[in-house]
Amino acid sequence: MSETSTQPSATGPAAYTPTDRTVPTRSRERAAYDRELVHAILDEGYVCHLGFVRDGAPVVLPTLYARVGERLYVHGSTGSRPLRMTGRPDPGLAVCLTVTHVDGLVLARSAFHHSINYRSVVVHGIAHEVTDPEERVLALDTLVDHIVPGRSADIRPANAKELAATAVISLDLDEVSAKLRTGDPSDEPEDLSLPHWTGVVPLAKGYGAPVPANDLAPGIELPGYLKTL
Amino acid sequence: MSETSTQPSATGPAAYTPTDRTVPTRSRERAAYDRELVHAILDEGYVCHLGFVRDGAPVVLPTLYARVGERLYVHGSTGSRPLRMTGRPDPGLAVCLTVTHVDGLVLARSAFHHSINYRSVVVHGIAHEVTDPEERVLALDTLVDHIVPGRSADIRPANAKELAATAVISLDLDEVSAKLRTGDPSDEPEDLSLPHWTGVVPLAKGYGAPVPANDLAPGIELPGYLKTL
Repeated sequence: MSETSTQPSATGPAAYTPTDRTVPTRSRERAAYDRELVHAILDEGYVCHLGFVRDGAPVVLPTLYARVGERLYVHGSTGSRPLRMTGRPDPGLAVCLTVTHVDGLVLARSAFHHSINYRSVVVHGIAHEVTDPEERVLALDTLVDHIVPGRSADIRPANAKELAATAVISLDLDEVSAKLRTGDPSDEPEDLSLPHWTGVVPLAKGYGAPVPANDLAPGIELPGYLKTL
Repeated sequence: MSETSTQPSATGPAAYTPTDRTVPTRSRERAAYDRELVHAILDEGYVCHLGFVRDGAPVVLPTLYARVGERLYVHGSTGSRPLRMTGRPDPGLAVCLTVTHVDGLVLARSAFHHSINYRSVVVHGIAHEVTDPEERVLALDTLVDHIVPGRSADIRPANAKELAATAVISLDLDEVSAKLRTGDPSDEPEDLSLPHWTGVVPLAKGYGAPVPANDLAPGIELPGYLKTL
C-alpha cells in the first residue's frame, strides 16, 4: 500500500507492516511496529479491552488474554456475547484488542503538555473460536500461566463439563501497532523559568502480599511461584 | 422495555435503568447499576478505553477521561480519529467507553474457577465535541485535577493556540452499567480438600516517589498536593 512507504521503521520480518488503520493520525512519532516491543508489551499484561460491533454500535469489554507466538488467546464463556457472535459455523468476528500499561503521570509546567507515560498495543483482526481440543488446553493453560507462571501445574485441570463451558477466541497478530510515551515532560522553551514543579510520578507496579482464602486448610504453604511473582 | 423488568435492583433515581445492552448475557449477578458505585469506579481511574466504529470495524483506543456530575469528558486532539469523525456540524459518534480496575488475582484450586477481582464500568452513548468555551475550560481543568487534585491551579493555563489544538468530547451517563467481582475464590465443594494453595493476590496500587524533570530548577520544592497523592 502506498500509505505505508513513508511510515516509521517497519520493514522486514522484525516488524509488523503498518496499514491505514495502524498508522495514527496524530503523534505518529509515538507509533512502533517492532515485534519484540509489541510482544513485550503484550506479555506484561493479562487484561485487554476487546472491541466489537453489535447492531452497528461499538462494545468494549475487559477480558483476559495471553500470547503464544503470533497468536493471542482470549478467554470467555460460551454464553458471552463475542463468543455467541462468532457463531457456528464460525464466520469470525471483527475485533479490536487493546492492551494499555500506564507507567507514569507527566506533569509539565503548562496545562497543555500534561500527559501520561504509557505503552499500548492495538490489534485489529478477525477473531475465531478455538475448537481444536489440544489447542484449547494449550490456550487455557497459557492463560493461567501467563498471569501466574507455574500455576497451571499446581491446580486441578478442567474436566469435560468445565471445558465445554469455557470458550477461547484466537486472534492472530498481523495488523498490529504499539504506541508509547516515555520520559520527561516536554515544556515550551518560554515556560522553563516558570516556578511550577515538573517531573514524572511513576505508578506503583506489582503485587501485595497474597491473602489466603478463608477455607484454606492449615498447613498448606504459599508456593514458591507466588513468592517470586 | 420488557427485558428490563426482571433485572437487578435498578429502580429509582439512585440507579441507572438497565437496557438490553447493559444487561450481560453471563454472570448477571456481577452487574450493578447503582449511581454511587458507578461514580466511585469512574472517579478512581483516569484512563478509559474508548470504542467506536470506523468503516464498519471496531476501534478501541486508550484515552483520558474525567467525570462532572452525569457527564464524562474525554480528552483528544483535534486531529485524532474520534474527533474528526464527530464532524462539523457534529452528528455525534456512537461510542462505548469502558473503565476497568484490576484489584486482585483469584487463585482457585481448580483451573476453571481461576478469576480476577475487578471493577468495571461500561458506558454506551453518543459522544459530542464540546464547543462551549466555558465548558471546555471546565472540562480541561477537571481532566488535570481528576488525575492530580490541586494541579490545575499550579500550572500555566492553556493559551488560545493550545486551546484550539485541544478537543474535548462529552458523553452523558445514561446507558451505564458496572460489573464487579470481589472476594475469595469459589471452589467446587469436592475440591476443598485438594492440596493447592488458594486465595487472592492483591495488586499494588498508588504511586512511586515523584521524579523531578532533568530541567527542574534548583529550589523548586515538591508541592504538597503531590506528597499526598
